Amino acid sequence: MANPRNLVVAQSGGPSAVINNTLRGIIETAREFAEIGTVYGARHGIEGVLKEELLNLSSQCSEEIALLRYTPAAGSIGTCRYKLKDGQDEDYERVIEVFKAHNVGYFIYIGGNDSMDTAHKISQLAHKRGLDLVAVGGPKTIDNDVGDSEFKLVDHTPGYGSTAKYWMHMVQWANEENGGSCPADPVLVMQAMGRKIGFIPAAARLADPDRKTPLQIYLAESPCSLEQLADNVNDQLRRDGRCMVVVSEGFDVGDLGLLKDSFGHAKFSSSQTTVAQVIVNYLNERGLAAKGSARGNVPGTDQRHAMALASTVDLEEAYKAGQFAAVLCARGESGFMSTILREEGPVYRAKYDKVPLEKVAAADRKFPSAWISESGYDVTDDFVRYATPLVGEDMLTLPIVRGRLRMTRLEKKYAQQKLAAYVPQGDRK
Amino acid sequence: MANPRNLVVAQSGGPSAVINNTLRGIIETAREFAEIGTVYGARHGIEGVLKEELLNLSSQCSEEIALLRYTPAAGSIGTCRYKLKDGQDEDYERVIEVFKAHNVGYFIYIGGNDSMDTAHKISQLAHKRGLDLVAVGGPKTIDNDVGDSEFKLVDHTPGYGSTAKYWMHMVQWANEENGGSCPADPVLVMQAMGRKIGFIPAAARLADPDRKTPLQIYLAESPCSLEQLADNVNDQLRRDGRCMVVVSEGFDVGDLGLLKDSFGHAKFSSSQTTVAQVIVNYLNERGLAAKGSARGNVPGTDQRHAMALASTVDLEEAYKAGQFAAVLCARGESGFMSTILREEGPVYRAKYDKVPLEKVAAADRKFPSAWISESGYDVTDDFVRYATPLVGEDMLTLPIVRGRLRMTRLEKKYAQQKLAAYVPQGDRK
Repeated sequence: MANPRNLVVAQSGGPSAVINNTLRGIIETAREFAEIGTVYGARHGIEGVLKEELLNLSSQCSEEIALLRYTPAAGSIGTCRYKLKDGQDEDYERVIEVFKAHNVGYFIYIGGNDSMDTAHKISQLAHKRGLDLVAVGGPKTIDNDVGDSEFKLVDHTPGYGSTAKYWMHMVQWANEENGGSCPADPVLVMQAMGRKIGFIPAAARLADPDRKTPLQIYLAESPCSLEQLADNVNDQLRRDGRCMVVVSEGFDVGDLGLLKDSFGHAKFSSSQTTVAQVIVNYLNERGLAAKGSARGNVPGTDQRHAMALASTVDLEEAYKAGQFAAVLCARGESGFMSTILREEGPVYRAKYDKVPLEKVAAADRKFPSAWISESGYDVTDDFVRYATPLVGEDMLTLPIVRGRLRMTRLEKKYAQQKLAAYVPQGDRK
Repeated sequence: MANPRNLVVAQSGGPSAVINNTLRGIIETAREFAEIGTVYGARHGIEGVLKEELLNLSSQCSEEIALLRYTPAAGSIGTCRYKLKDGQDEDYERVIEVFKAHNVGYFIYIGGNDSMDTAHKISQLAHKRGLDLVAVGGPKTIDNDVGDSEFKLVDHTPGYGSTAKYWMHMVQWANEENGGSCPADPVLVMQAMGRKIGFIPAAARLADPDRKTPLQIYLAESPCSLEQLADNVNDQLRRDGRCMVVVSEGFDVGDLGLLKDSFGHAKFSSSQTTVAQVIVNYLNERGLAAKGSARGNVPGTDQRHAMALASTVDLEEAYKAGQFAAVLCARGESGFMSTILREEGPVYRAKYDKVPLEKVAAADRKFPSAWISESGYDVTDDFVRYATPLVGEDMLTLPIVRGRLRMTRLEKKYAQQKLAAYVPQGDRK
C-alpha cells in the first residue's frame, strides 16, 4: 500500500446545529482507512488553507471529537464567507501549493452550491498541476437550498432538520403566548432565515399540521404587497382575534438597506431594517389591532445554533453524510459530493449516495410551487409529509456541566508552516 | 366547618416559561383544603373577572393540570394587560359583584407590582362592601423587577431563572458561531427584554463566568452614548477580532418610535425600530468591521416561552410560590403576596414567606449598582453568585408526542354566568 496521504477538511458559509457532526463523521471514519493519514481542519474554511493554518484533528482527544455531536455552529475549526472567485488564480495556485507542501491527497469541502463549485475547480486545477487530489464535497445548509428542485440530487441538506425543528417549537410556544396574551398583543410577526428559498419559514407549519391556529406563512417565493398582507392579517383578526405571521427574511417589502457579503449575496442579517420590522410598522400604522399592537421576533443566528432543539435525525444524517464523504475519499472518487436521498415508499428512510460536484454547483433548488397553498400564505400537506421525518421525534439529551453545555475543546495543534506567509487575494487592499 | 368558598385566580402582564406551574401549585394545593371550594381561572386575567368568564379548574382532568408544568406562556387561562386604574370605580365594584355572585372567598392575582396594587385595592373594597375576601398575590416576572433592591421582600421572581437560563445558553451558543464565523460577522448584537431593569441582559454573563469571551453587556441602568459603545466595541475588535453585545431593550439610544401599553409603559416590542437595530446600523455606518459587518438578534417573546430551556429550579420555585399562595388563602391571610426569599449562608436554598401587598406595590427594585462593573458594560461576580443557582444544573425533560411538546389542554368548562353582561370601563368607546 502506498504511503497514506493527508486529508484537509474545510467549512464554508453559515453554520448549523449539526455541521460539527459531519466533521466528526469525517474524522472518525478517516481513521479506519490506511490510505488516509492525518486529518487537518482548515481554520476558518478556505482562508485557513490559503494561510496554511491547518489544525491537526487526528491527534485530538477522542472524547473531544465525540463531543462535536453536541457542539453547534462552527467554532471548532471555523467557517468563512471568503470566496475563491473566478480569476483569483493566485489563490487557487496557493491552495495547490499548500496541499503539496503538506502531502494532502484528500480535500473535503463542507458547504453549499458555491463551495461545491470551489471544490470542483480545485479538483480540476490539481489535476493540471500534477497533484493527485481527491476532492469531495460535504453537504450543509439550514436553508435546504442545495441541489435540485426535483430532490433527485439532494433530498435535503444536513442542518435543515434542526432549524425546522427550531421553528416547529418556537411557533408552537409562541402560539401559547399569542393565544394567552390577546388582546394586548394580537399580532406576532416572526422572521425566518432564507434569502430566496422558503423551506425554513415553511417549517412553521410543523407546529400545527392540523391548521388549528391562526398562522400565516409568507415565503420569499410567494410575494404579495404589504397591503395584501395586512388585509390577510385583518381577515384573520376578524376570525380569530389574533394572528401569527412567519415571514422569510427575503420576503419583498421594499428597500431594507441591504449590505452584501463577499459572495455578492444580500446580507439580510445586517440590513438597516428587517422585513419583520417593516411589517410590524405597517400593521401598527394601519392600526389593525384596535386594543393592542403588532410585535416582532427576529431570532437571527439563534435558529442555527439552538442546540437544545437540534434534530436527532438531522444529527445522525449529518454524521453519515460526513462518513460517506470520507468513504468517497478512501475510494478515490474525486469530484463528488456525498448526498442524502430518500428511499421510495411511504416509510421514511435516508440513503447516502454521491452526486457530481459540477451538477450540484449548477443546480438551483426552489421551493416547489406545488407546496405553496392557494392562499399564498401557507404550505401544503405534501410539504408537511416531506419535512416531518427530518425533525425527528426525540429531544436531544445534552451533556450539561455546571449548568452549561459541555462543548468540544480542541487543542491548538497546528501543522508546522512550511511556506512563506500569504495574504489571500480578497484580503489585499 | 363553614361552607367552602371558591377561589378565583387571575394572571396579569407578560407570561413566562413557569407561570403555569404557579397556577398548578395553586390548583393542586387548594384541593387539600376543605375551606376552599372550586378553583376558577379568570379568562385573560382581570378582564375575565369583569366579564364573568370563570374557567372551572377543579373539574379538569388531573393529568392535564399536571401538564401545566410543561406548558409555557399563559395560554391555559390567559393573561391581560388590562389595568384597573384608580377612579375606575365601576370596574372595582363589578369585581366585588362577580365575586359575591360566585361565592368567591379567595382571590389570587399572579403578576408584578401593578397587579399587587390591584389585588390590594380589591381587598380593601371587598372589606368595605362586606365581602369576606382573602386577596393574595402570586409573584411573577421574567424581568425580576418585583420587590425591593435589598432583596428583603423578594429575592427573585418566578420566571426570571428560566429567562436567565435562556440567555446563558443563547450567548454560549452564539459565541460558538461568532468565534467560528469571524471575520465575516465579527459583531453580534443581541437584544434582551427588560424595559428599565437589567437582570435579563446581565444573565448573559452566566454563559461565560470566567470572562474568556469578548462579551459586552449594556444594561438600561448603565447608559452610555452610541459613540462610546462603538468605541468599546472597536477596542474589543482590536483585541479579539470580534465582539458580542447584549443590550437591554430599554437601553437609551434615542427615539425608537415607542407605543405605550395600557399601563402607560413603553412597548419596546412594538417600537418602530429596535435598540439592537440602531446599534447595528451605527456600527455598520462607522464601518468598524473592515471585512465584515454587525448583525442583530432580537429573540423577543421567545425568551419567555422557550420551554426547552426552562430552569428546573425556577419551575420548582414557581410551583411552591403558588402552593404558598394557596396556603395563605386557606389560612385567611389576606393582603399578602407569597414570596421567595433566600436562606442566609453560602449554600443556596429558597424559602417561602409572605409580604404585604402594599409593600410590594410600592417597592421599586433596581439592579444593584454595585453589581455593574467599572467598565459599565459588564456585571460583577456577585451578580453571578446571585443568579447561578436560579438557572439550575439540569435540562428539563419534556413530554414529546408526535415530535412536539405535549401541553395542557383544558376543557372549556365555564361557570354559568349569573349577572348581566358588562363592558369593562377601559374597553368602552
